[in-house]
Formats: sequence, structure tokens, C-alpha cells
Amino acid sequence: MPLLVMKFGGTSVADLSRIENAANKVRKEVERGYDVIVIVSAMSGKTNELVGWVEGTSKLYDAREYDAVVASGENVTAGLMALRLQEMGVPARSWQGWQVPINTTSAHGSARFVSIPRDNIDAKFAEGFKVAVVAGFQGVSAEGRITTLGRGGSDTTAVAFAAAFGAERCDIYTDVDGVYTTDPRITDKARKLDKIAFEEMLELASLGAKVLQTRSVELAMRYKVRLRVLSSFEDTDETSGTLVCDEDEIMESKVVSGVAYSRDEAKMTLIAVADRPGVAAAIFGPLADAGVNVDMIVQNISDHAGKDGGPVTDMTFSCPTNQVARAQKAMEDARAAGLIAYEGHVVDSDVAKVSVVGIGMRSHAGVAATMFKALAAENVNIKVIATSEIKISVLIDRKYMELAVQALHDAFGLDKVS
Amino acid sequence: MPLLVMKFGGTSVADLSRIENAANKVRKEVERGYDVIVIVSAMSGKTNELVGWVEGTSKLYDAREYDAVVASGENVTAGLMALRLQEMGVPARSWQGWQVPINTTSAHGSARFVSIPRDNIDAKFAEGFKVAVVAGFQGVSAEGRITTLGRGGSDTTAVAFAAAFGAERCDIYTDVDGVYTTDPRITDKARKLDKIAFEEMLELASLGAKVLQTRSVELAMRYKVRLRVLSSFEDTDETSGTLVCDEDEIMESKVVSGVAYSRDEAKMTLIAVADRPGVAAAIFGPLADAGVNVDMIVQNISDHAGKDGGPVTDMTFSCPTNQVARAQKAMEDARAAGLIAYEGHVVDSDVAKVSVVGIGMRSHAGVAATMFKALAAENVNIKVIATSEIKISVLIDRKYMELAVQALHDAFGLDKVS
Repeated sequence: MPLLVMKFGGTSVADLSRIENAANKVRKEVERGYDVIVIVSAMSGKTNELVGWVEGTSKLYDAREYDAVVASGENVTAGLMALRLQEMGVPARSWQGWQVPINTTSAHGSARFVSIPRDNIDAKFAEGFKVAVVAGFQGVSAEGRITTLGRGGSDTTAVAFAAAFGAERCDIYTDVDGVYTTDPRITDKARKLDKIAFEEMLELASLGAKVLQTRSVELAMRYKVRLRVLSSFEDTDETSGTLVCDEDEIMESKVVSGVAYSRDEAKMTLIAVADRPGVAAAIFGPLADAGVNVDMIVQNISDHAGKDGGPVTDMTFSCPTNQVARAQKAMEDARAAGLIAYEGHVVDSDVAKVSVVGIGMRSHAGVAATMFKALAAENVNIKVIATSEIKISVLIDRKYMELAVQALHDAFGLDKVS
Repeated sequence: MPLLVMKFGGTSVADLSRIENAANKVRKEVERGYDVIVIVSAMSGKTNELVGWVEGTSKLYDAREYDAVVASGENVTAGLMALRLQEMGVPARSWQGWQVPINTTSAHGSARFVSIPRDNIDAKFAEGFKVAVVAGFQGVSAEGRITTLGRGGSDTTAVAFAAAFGAERCDIYTDVDGVYTTDPRITDKARKLDKIAFEEMLELASLGAKVLQTRSVELAMRYKVRLRVLSSFEDTDETSGTLVCDEDEIMESKVVSGVAYSRDEAKMTLIAVADRPGVAAAIFGPLADAGVNVDMIVQNISDHAGKDGGPVTDMTFSCPTNQVARAQKAMEDARAAGLIAYEGHVVDSDVAKVSVVGIGMRSHAGVAATMFKALAAENVNIKVIATSEIKISVLIDRKYMELAVQALHDAFGLDKVS
């Protein structure tokens, strides 16, 4: 029997009528001949209520107990969804993490999958059940304690089940109808993509496109799980949404698939850093220890010599705006401890990152040139450039962000179907 | 290490401040040198919310899924209680039914205990944990599905743990401060009992005193678990509340310990029932099949012969008011089917049951006489009498109920400390 995984997020199961709506989508797939594994999140608002109680009880809470309390939200949805499917005549059974079992590490709050044995659920399918409704976001440790997976955990659960059960596809039902060439709030020329490659989705997700969580895309790419993003709130069929898949499945791809942006960026430059072997490690070690998520890094040869006459360099990096104070303190502490030497630093908290992403870049020259020309035509000054095999990112003044996104969307013809 | 079981019901853990209050009571017992097993109910209102969702999803719901959804309420409280205790510096760990495991039958919604192995919790106590917070009302079936125990399940869980772990005592914290000689709303002479025997508590519980659920008292009596009922909302010490214990522990007991009543009674008399062997079975079989909970039964020799000249008898029984219509239909159907023969029936829905209970009755004659004299002095007519070894119950007109309770409370001197 072919098998599908279908995942419904919190807004898609927010109340009994939405659970019914989601159950209808499951029923249709069963009628098409699929066995279905449904992954559900907590009814929206419920996780926040539970987290509020935990935080109201204990400031420095024990992550084991946090997980035990918070995971109950998904368990409730799983039971209700199974009941609703039964009410529709679809044989369904709910599964909590420990019942499958979804074996994870014991890193409570951010556990990772160890194994998902198929035996128990397969036995129920063999008995004639058509749907297994699995509580997302959770698992069980070797010690028999409930674990949770951390942010985006339900998407990751869905992909992991699709991999473990060899699902034909993993459908992620959410509150948007697919992946767009860019944020439709920035330009109404934004167009929904029919397909996008894993690598592109991964870049878009890590650049801030909130449709799918990075970790779930990584997992899908590793296990070649075909992911589909589609809307809970619209009538959908087999062609709806956006398919995230291997690039081999995408016949003719554009050079650039999408334009992403991130508003909350800050840039920090250390001026005239004494340039000796190991200086990069001496800078970024303390930053990592301080929990600063460094994104782009640029090292320039400085045009002046250091005070002691030795070679110096300017080191620039970007990080989320709310980590800048921590980054500054980490650098000053490292300087005070004699780990690094620099003359001063400049912080710019008014920047944004704009990126173009596309696997076509690999085989097409001139993408960077097109990008820089389009930005120059709008008089947008580029402060930092970083490139990867399938992505070019620039830091610019935040006030030009929308303008830059629109200009790039036009320059790469993203409003036109290829 | 001596061990205590402490149970907190829904109103005692209704919100975070009440959970803190309950945790303080646990902390004090730990400071007195006890290891403690805490049994918790769902925060009050939560179980109703969950049941509402289940019933809103499916009319004829699958009891397995009902249990999976509803049990989550207790799990949340268990985690929060463990966190609150940790916050107070008391090493605590939460336990869901499947983690202990609390092995039960698979009668979902009304499961019974099969076994409660001590190994897992004992291992945690050996590691230095002082408190195990166990989610009440639930267990796990041999099939690995979550079960619930039915009404009063958390009291029963507490007693079962006290038996399994050889607890010194099982303290049931609730919204009243103990067991009274009668309902204080009926007479302000009602007095809190320091001790009461299991058998007496059992009669009082089944007679409608809502302090403890019948099943938990039965279990306590069978395993000789000393039960204490006391208030969550008052400062309590080792002498608070009422101890429910073996009669050997009660030095000097009164002849009568308490007066109980039940308002929702109805009486039905079948007139001139053809009296042949097996007639009682022919009447009460169909009533049981119809789900009528028959309480008192009285059979009188009728003063007239039957229409066919054979011997006849009048048969009277009582049942809850809301089952009278069902009882009537069951009897008429049985007569129509030729299973029984009777001339007519009389229903009286305006009766109440008043009972006096006391193990002292066994060795004291004259209790019934005292009871009937006291009622006669108030001109209360007795309609049905039923007796057991430690209880005398009468059915009377409902309008005399309060008067009867007060008169009996006085007649047996229950307002005076013995």
C-alpha cells in the first residue's frame, strides 16, 4: 500500500472545526488508496499556555519536566484527530512518542532522532487501520523520559516518519499556499513556485523564509523525502502547493529561484586587528562561546600598519541585531584578556541582508554582476558581500531593503513562469 | 526511609498558586523525614475542557482515544508539581502512568489495577530523589495504550500506591477538612470525626457522603492502608483531618458514628406479584439489564390472594429517581413477555433515604429501637427499612429528611465527643 505523511501545524488544528477540516483532507487521501501517517502539532495557543505555566512555576526549569508538560499539547490533538477520523468511518489510531516509540537523544528541549522502529505502527496497518495519527514535536529518551525536539519539531517529525516508512511524499499543511519567489508582502509580483530544489529551500529557510524549518529540509534532503508545502485552508489536490524535491526532478530551472531577506541584521567591524596566525579563531571562538550566531564574515587587508608596525587587518562580521551587545562584550573581554588586539570597533545596527538563491547559478556566470548592477541602478550601496555555491548575499542599509528585493525580483525575471 | 502518599484533587491544584500551596505541604513532610509519593488530579476545569473536546468531536467516541486525550490533564499537573518542588529545593520527578508503569486492565474508562511494580520509582528514590509525583486516574494496558480508571480514580491511585509501596499513611487532601458525623449543612451540631473505621467510611461513601470514593475505601480496607482525609486550604499537621483506619485502631467507638442521607431516591412497589420460586430473579434480572441500580428491597406477604387464587406478594424496591422511568418500562416489558405477573405498581418519587452507620452496632442491641423512637417522636413515617451489620437505613418522605437527620444526630449523641 502506498503511504503518505501529512503534517498539520498549530493553526491548522486550532479548534474542533479546523481539526475536522484537516481530517477531511486525510480522508480524501485514504480514499485515493493511501495509508496515511498524520503528524499533528498542539492546537494553537495551547503550547504557549503550557509554557506559561512552566515558566510561572520555575524560572530555571528542569528541561525534563518542561518536556513532560509541553508534549501533552500534541497528545490531545492526536487523540482528537483520531476520533474525528473514526467518526468519518476511517479506521485511525493515535500515537504518542513513547508508544511508537520515537527514540531520541536525551537532550531535552532539543532532542535528536535516534530511531523510529516501524513495527508497532505497521502492525496496526496490518490489522486494517488506515491512519496513524502521531503527536509531533516529541519523542522518548533511552531513560524513558519524554523529550521534545525544539523549534519546528513537528515538521522534522513528519520528515523523519516519511524517511522511516518510505513515504511517497510528505505533505506539510500550513497557513500559506506554497513557497514564493519572494515575500508577497514586499512585492505583489511574487509568484508561487511549483517546485524548488532541497538546496534552494535550505538556503531560503536559513535566510528567514518561515515556511519550513531548516532542520526539516536538511533531513528531507539527506533522505530524499519529497516535501510538499500547501495550504490547510484551501481546497487542495495533487498539484497544489510547492514541491520541495531533488533537483533532478526539476526539468528546467531558472538561474535564480528566489529572493530572500532578513531585517534583523547588524554588522560589526574590528579595526586594525593584529594579523597573526590563529587570529580568526581567537575572534570567533569567544563569539561562539558567548552564543553569538555569526553569519557573514569578511576580512580585508587594512590600508594602514598597526601601532607596533606589524601587519593588521579589518575584520567584519554580521549577526542578529539582538546579539550585538553580547558580541561587543565578548570582543572587549577577549582584548582585555590579551587574546586579541585591535584598535577599535564600529557597529552598524541599521543593516539588512538580501540574498538571491538558485541552483542554476552553478552553471551560469554573471549572476553576481546582474545583482550588483541592479542594486547600483537603484543607488543601493553594498556593505558586505558573501557568496556560496547557490547563493549571493549582500548587507545593505535597512531603509533600502524593500527596494532592493523588488529590483532583484525584476532583474532576474522571477515574476515570469520559466 | 518511611514513605507517605499524598493526594491532591483538582481544586487543590486548580492554578499555579494552589500547586505551590500543595507543594509546600509536600516539602514539610520531606523535612519531617519522609520519602513522598504525590498523586495529582488535573487542574480543575481541565478535565471538563478535554471531555468537551472529545464529545464535540465524536458522539460515540472510542474509549481508547478518550483516555489518551483526557489523561493528559493529570500529566500537566504532575510536571508542574515536580517543577515547583524542585524550585523549593526538593528533588522531585514526575511520573506518567506508562512510566511507572501502572499496569491496568484494558477496560478503557473504567480500568482496574493489575500491578504497580516498584522498581523504577524505587531506583529514583535510591538516586536521591525525595518525591515521585504521579499522574492520578490513569494507567497503561498490556497493549501499551493509555487507560483511565473512571470516577474517583485519583483517590484509588493514591491508595494503590500506598499499598504497593507500604506507605505509613495515605493522605487525601481535599476541599473539606475531614469526615463529619453528618452533613454540616443539615445541622450545625455536625462534628468532625478524628477517626472512623473502614467499614463505616465505606457505608458512608456508598450512602452519598462525597468525601471519598467507595472504590478507594474498599481498596484501603483490603490492603489495610491508613487513609487520612484533610483540607488543602488550611494549615495542617499530623493531627488534622480524619483518619480512616482499621477498627482496632479506634479505642472507644460510639455505637453510631454518623448519619448519612440521600435525597434522590424513588420507591416502586409491585402489587400482588404471583409468588412462585424464582420470582425475585425474574424481577431484578430485567432491572439489572436495564441499568437500574436497585438499592433497598423489601418483600411483604400480601394480605389478599391473587386473581388465580394462588399466593401473591408485594415487592418494593428503591432506586435513584432518574432511573424510575427505566425501571417501570423494564417491569412492564417483563410482564408483557410473561416473565412475571403482578396486578399493578405504585411509584413514589418523593422519598429520601436516611441511614445511621456504626461498627458499634454489632455489639449493641437497641440501635434500631432508638432510631425508630426518635423518628416517631417527630412524627416521621417510615416507608421501608433495610439493615446491614453496621447500618440501618429507612426511606421516608423527602420533606422530613432534614428533620430526621437532626433528630437522629441528637438521639445518638453525635455532637458530643465520646
